[in-house]
Amino acid sequence: MAQYALGLDFGTESARAVVVGLADGREAGTAVAPYPHGVVEGSLPDGGRLEPDWALQDADDYLAVLEQIVPAALEAAGVHPADIVGIGVDFTACTLVPCRADGTPLSRDARLRTEPHAWTRLWKHHAAQPEADRVNRLATERGEPFLARYGGLTSSEWLLPKAWQLLDEAPTVYAEAGCLVEAGDWLVWQLTGRLSRSACQAGYKALWGREEGYPSPDFLRALDPRLEHLASEKLAGEVVPIGTCAGELTAATAQRLHLRPGIPVATSIIDAHAAVPAAGVSGPGTMVVILGTSGCHMVLATSGNSFPGIAGVVQDGILPGYFGYEAGQPATGDILNWFVRHSLPAAEQQEAEARGISPHQLLSERAALLRPGESGLLALDWWNGNRSVLMDAELSGVLLGLTLDTRPEHIYRALIEGTAFGTRVILENFVRHGIEIHTIVGAGGLSERHELLMQIYADVTGRPLHVARSGQACAVGAAILGAVAAGAARGGYDCLEEAVAHMGGVRDHTYRPDLAAHARYSAMYEEWVRLHDYFGRGHNSVLKKLRSWR
Amino acid sequence: MAQYALGLDFGTESARAVVVGLADGREAGTAVAPYPHGVVEGSLPDGGRLEPDWALQDADDYLAVLEQIVPAALEAAGVHPADIVGIGVDFTACTLVPCRADGTPLSRDARLRTEPHAWTRLWKHHAAQPEADRVNRLATERGEPFLARYGGLTSSEWLLPKAWQLLDEAPTVYAEAGCLVEAGDWLVWQLTGRLSRSACQAGYKALWGREEGYPSPDFLRALDPRLEHLASEKLAGEVVPIGTCAGELTAATAQRLHLRPGIPVATSIIDAHAAVPAAGVSGPGTMVVILGTSGCHMVLATSGNSFPGIAGVVQDGILPGYFGYEAGQPATGDILNWFVRHSLPAAEQQEAEARGISPHQLLSERAALLRPGESGLLALDWWNGNRSVLMDAELSGVLLGLTLDTRPEHIYRALIEGTAFGTRVILENFVRHGIEIHTIVGAGGLSERHELLMQIYADVTGRPLHVARSGQACAVGAAILGAVAAGAARGGYDCLEEAVAHMGGVRDHTYRPDLAAHARYSAMYEEWVRLHDYFGRGHNSVLKKLRSWR
Repeated sequence: MAQYALGLDFGTESARAVVVGLADGREAGTAVAPYPHGVVEGSLPDGGRLEPDWALQDADDYLAVLEQIVPAALEAAGVHPADIVGIGVDFTACTLVPCRADGTPLSRDARLRTEPHAWTRLWKHHAAQPEADRVNRLATERGEPFLARYGGLTSSEWLLPKAWQLLDEAPTVYAEAGCLVEAGDWLVWQLTGRLSRSACQAGYKALWGREEGYPSPDFLRALDPRLEHLASEKLAGEVVPIGTCAGELTAATAQRLHLRPGIPVATSIIDAHAAVPAAGVSGPGTMVVILGTSGCHMVLATSGNSFPGIAGVVQDGILPGYFGYEAGQPATGDILNWFVRHSLPAAEQQEAEARGISPHQLLSERAALLRPGESGLLALDWWNGNRSVLMDAELSGVLLGLTLDTRPEHIYRALIEGTAFGTRVILENFVRHGIEIHTIVGAGGLSERHELLMQIYADVTGRPLHVARSGQACAVGAAILGAVAAGAARGGYDCLEEAVAHMGGVRDHTYRPDLAAHARYSAMYEEWVRLHDYFGRGHNSVLKKLRSWR
Repeated sequence: MAQYALGLDFGTESARAVVVGLADGREAGTAVAPYPHGVVEGSLPDGGRLEPDWALQDADDYLAVLEQIVPAALEAAGVHPADIVGIGVDFTACTLVPCRADGTPLSRDARLRTEPHAWTRLWKHHAAQPEADRVNRLATERGEPFLARYGGLTSSEWLLPKAWQLLDEAPTVYAEAGCLVEAGDWLVWQLTGRLSRSACQAGYKALWGREEGYPSPDFLRALDPRLEHLASEKLAGEVVPIGTCAGELTAATAQRLHLRPGIPVATSIIDAHAAVPAAGVSGPGTMVVILGTSGCHMVLATSGNSFPGIAGVVQDGILPGYFGYEAGQPATGDILNWFVRHSLPAAEQQEAEARGISPHQLLSERAALLRPGESGLLALDWWNGNRSVLMDAELSGVLLGLTLDTRPEHIYRALIEGTAFGTRVILENFVRHGIEIHTIVGAGGLSERHELLMQIYADVTGRPLHVARSGQACAVGAAILGAVAAGAARGGYDCLEEAVAHMGGVRDHTYRPDLAAHARYSAMYEEWVRLHDYFGRGHNSVLKKLRSWR
């Protein structure tokens, strides 16, 4: 009898269950369901107004969709529950559930249902920027050791500013929250009845390090005396490496999901990071890049040096036994979508419609006819600020070389090239600091459907570019971790490398760098980096002034 | 009986005759006709191929349209030929007619009709760039004194490179051309039977100076021994100041034009420069700006210092008794038209169509709601290179501050602001060199219909902005010169100031700078100038590299 692992992928708008074959990574069945309350922005379901920058979710939505998608995926796969040997979970992060000590979300309490602070703060809740600014300022002043692991700057999306905002603005709700927990860890807790925490979320989003633990009570007290005992009061649960078995499916949950009780459940992982094992990567040398609306760059290494320009380095945070490095670009597909929405002339729009293709296809078709450099344009891809390596959200995009002969496809190609140059900066920063990268694997929507973009990335970086085999790489990565949680004795794999070798991988087609194109792009890249440093490293602060005048 | 002057305005595509009242500048009647052969590009009428960058005209077209428009304008005006006291002519320049010593255009000769070199080279014939480069190189090496009068650089559009290209590529045609003459001077020759040359065309386009004359035979010999005697061999005709009476209408021509013989004809003027008297300007202190597809900036001064960043300074070249300074921007309206043609999304296009307004109106309406700086953008307006003050055709446009929230009206406003900053650079360069400018008068299409642009120019420059009263300012300026050519004894004016005071002027509405907007724009201008110097003065030559890679 073939055996399977179940990958549960919790995204921003919906959750997905995928039944994955242990022998070959075949995706036997899939089911997707949107969260009943979606992303809660603007107002609560009862109409209570939310401030701008707020983004909430209802933790009970996660359980509700689970009861739909797990049985549906099994049915679609035609797989018997007995053949599921392990379960893995990936989740957006930091998505923070305020709950009681027993795991009950505060938002389930009718008394607190109208209180926004009792709801789950979604990863893209950006209302804690003042708190994040104070964290960064104080940590810099004090030379807090954790800061280096995050390239010198922490984000308003992370746990500490989110928790602090809750404490600041709703101290009584904070007091009722016996536990503040990442939604991924919370979900595993619901499945297994046991609370533990993933080194991935704790490391990348909660300033936790394996040697150092959470930020010191001394630092937290200096930040706000009420935060001094944050870790012991609100962050219960051992932090365990990726690849750990977090527990077994409880009988009650098994019944609701039509699964057998006792199935091993892996500790959770951040969604993007789950793409690494799915892409067939189980060790150093390969950078996995999520190419979607934004970009996320991940690479494994045997040592954990901190250096500027990384978003985070976490021991055991992506795969056990390695230091996982993360970097990112805050807009990739988003820039191309912006261009199509706000700069595509009617003639091009009509042609695309008449031919039944998307504007992206039309522009790609025309842009593909241009040689590197032929557009005459260069773009600094900072339409949504810069994450790596400058860590500066206040930067904005720059387009150079415009003439009366500039056409939409010239700009479209320059925008793609701009994001590719941004990826090369990240890659070279890793390499400069001793982290070998000989190949790249793309995952996410653009990697599957944007051939021109993929070829440009190969030509710009000078690295062969593979595509993760699965179109639902995060879920497959979660399933791989489920198979490892089971271990060989229970029908899975003892060794992560083995699971990856069987269940992960890339497609046959490889985008190989064209040497002539790479040479021209390297000359363009030299100019691009000069502009990047000029506008991004304080030689000319015009972009910040422009923002201040808006 | 009211008396009138006739202004003849020869543009790129068509010619216009306007009957202008001497007492009050009233435009009593107008007629326009396109040149039968238009702009000859791509191929000759007989199908003979032309190289790219070639742009020719048929000199006989000028006479053909004249016979249509003069009687038609008189008829439209209901004016008797006896009441026309003077004629003035403005013309594109350098538009170079190769003709025999008696004025017969070589292109009229059937034997030469298929020879492109025998045709008139239009101002925008750009095929003599190699010759212009050699002129500039040698003049710089030798420290030729004329160079300073042109800000250190001469253009491929001017007489010397055009003549030299003819000599280089078709020496036998060159030999047959007893005379090389500006089309404006050629036309006056046809009207009066006498050849003289305008100080305006000679000064701005043929390197002529009142003290120095044409470039020295020594310099010309060094350039090419065959050019040594260019002036004496090909450039016959006394150079006379603007405001001179060049002669009287011959009987033969008068008959063809249904005019009376003997009417005084003024020496010709370049079309843009004719707008200065039409704008009511007869002395220093006011900068006249032609705001059309490109921009031309003119100001009068009592002394003639040469300094960098001017396109030319010519004694008696705009109005007699003054040094006329010229500067320019190679694209103004062209940039806005480029944006509407190649970046306007379908939604905006449809809205404009539904409301029956132009896309420019729609974008202006939205852009007018933005405060200065609110777009978050800055644009270096070099879509067609830079004329003043950098004199560098290889520069290209730069747009900074783009974000995912950038909308078409933000960019549209930034493009207008970019051209306004470019005009402020020109203005401040004049002021820094002692040329007073307390007010600006706009002429040309944009000045009449683009209120937002006019207000932004006032706010950016901090100067009140008037609009030339006439929508056909060049023709009115020519008519003013016609009235002066006649002199008081023959029903016109002896004094140019008097003619300007009666016949030129501005509209009632003045765009006055808003002090708060001017202050914000001055802060933005400081950033703009830093970028202008960084990209335009060799600190970063990326724009030239981008051009070389195209």
